[in-house]
Amino acid sequence: MTSSASASASSSPAPRKDPWDLPDVSGLTVGVLGGTGDQGRGLAYRLARAGQRVVIGSRAAERAEQAAHELGQGVEGAENAECARRSDVVIVAVPWDGHARTLEALREELRGKLVVDCVNPLGFDKKGAYAIRPEEGSAAQQAEALLPESRVTAAFHHLSAVLLSDPAVEKIDTDVMVLGEDREDCAVVQALAGRIPGMRGVFSGRLRNAHQVESLVANLVSVNRRYKVHAGIRLTDL
Amino acid sequence: MTSSASASASSSPAPRKDPWDLPDVSGLTVGVLGGTGDQGRGLAYRLARAGQRVVIGSRAAERAEQAAHELGQGVEGAENAECARRSDVVIVAVPWDGHARTLEALREELRGKLVVDCVNPLGFDKKGAYAIRPEEGSAAQQAEALLPESRVTAAFHHLSAVLLSDPAVEKIDTDVMVLGEDREDCAVVQALAGRIPGMRGVFSGRLRNAHQVESLVANLVSVNRRYKVHAGIRLTDL
Repeated sequence: MTSSASASASSSPAPRKDPWDLPDVSGLTVGVLGGTGDQGRGLAYRLARAGQRVVIGSRAAERAEQAAHELGQGVEGAENAECARRSDVVIVAVPWDGHARTLEALREELRGKLVVDCVNPLGFDKKGAYAIRPEEGSAAQQAEALLPESRVTAAFHHLSAVLLSDPAVEKIDTDVMVLGEDREDCAVVQALAGRIPGMRGVFSGRLRNAHQVESLVANLVSVNRRYKVHAGIRLTDL
Repeated sequence: MTSSASASASSSPAPRKDPWDLPDVSGLTVGVLGGTGDQGRGLAYRLARAGQRVVIGSRAAERAEQAAHELGQGVEGAENAECARRSDVVIVAVPWDGHARTLEALREELRGKLVVDCVNPLGFDKKGAYAIRPEEGSAAQQAEALLPESRVTAAFHHLSAVLLSDPAVEKIDTDVMVLGEDREDCAVVQALAGRIPGMRGVFSGRLRNAHQVESLVANLVSVNRRYKVHAGIRLTDL
């Protein structure tokens, strides 16, 4: 909206940084912990297909290498710790019930790394999916608590594993809500999301507001069931 | 996606109901409790402009009548209890800190009515907005607990009061996530949303998944601040 943009510009002495001015991330290696699960495989596939160097991690090196081989696109596989060591940015795509254990075990390897948590703590019963509230507030805040020397962000929560993994799908029209405490770290994650055709990384707040972003997947499950779709999110007016 | 739609059809003996087949709601009177606040005024204005009969409610009849007069479009004003009595569908747009008190006082008048909670329990501090978690799980679940003889749904959380109230804005391109336990009740709310140009009402789950929908407004506040916009939500692939 023009009115609010001009109002803001007039009150700030320094020129406002363009929020769409994002860094070149093409040289970064991206690790995907839990890279043999549906979400992890899908993300690894899309990022590699977009030209990113990707290493998927698993508890067993052999399984990771097998999955990497199946994905093609130059994806490599390694045991989780080795995956973290070789990566600049590490996406956490493990199941919620292995989240704390996996991160605790990798504290050393993840020191100083940009960690991107994309885990959705959900439960399922006869009535469908429902949100689980971690003691720390969210999966991302649990990661932040367990990895005090890493740079923790949260993103990639609302992507359909089916669409990510389907080679016939050229473009995935969706926004990736990126949360974090550090503007530069968020910008890297936004830029990574933006490498995938159709996707846009949008800064969407601090980690204390991650729970609702993670939990919204329970609603998308309901939408998918009612409308027989693979729903995602777009933010309007930007 | 064609594949999942056909898979679902084959497993169900009865023909699946078209989720876009919504009732005619043009004859319903819509009440807006808290209709003198920004969100309530904006919703009342849009619904009336779309041809709906709208009564806004306030604690003082005079204030409601004054606001109704300012809105035009045939909007009427009344004291909250009278507003509830005269309406078929009652939108709850009061501030969060008056939510429980207002609903408790209107239990009789709201008996049997379709109640649409659009309240976002948020707090604000120097770091911006953050979600407040009501004891009942969400504002909508609090309404459900306080109004056992009403039909409680939740919707209209992510609309910008600025856009709603601007007469120059012809169309608001956004989805309205509608939550509830009863399919027919949700369909009425979806149809109401659909009367406003650009809007689409989308069933998005049960009330137990309302908290994250209400709280997502904290993230939209961050988006609005960073990008200088009035962000809303679209669900993709449908």
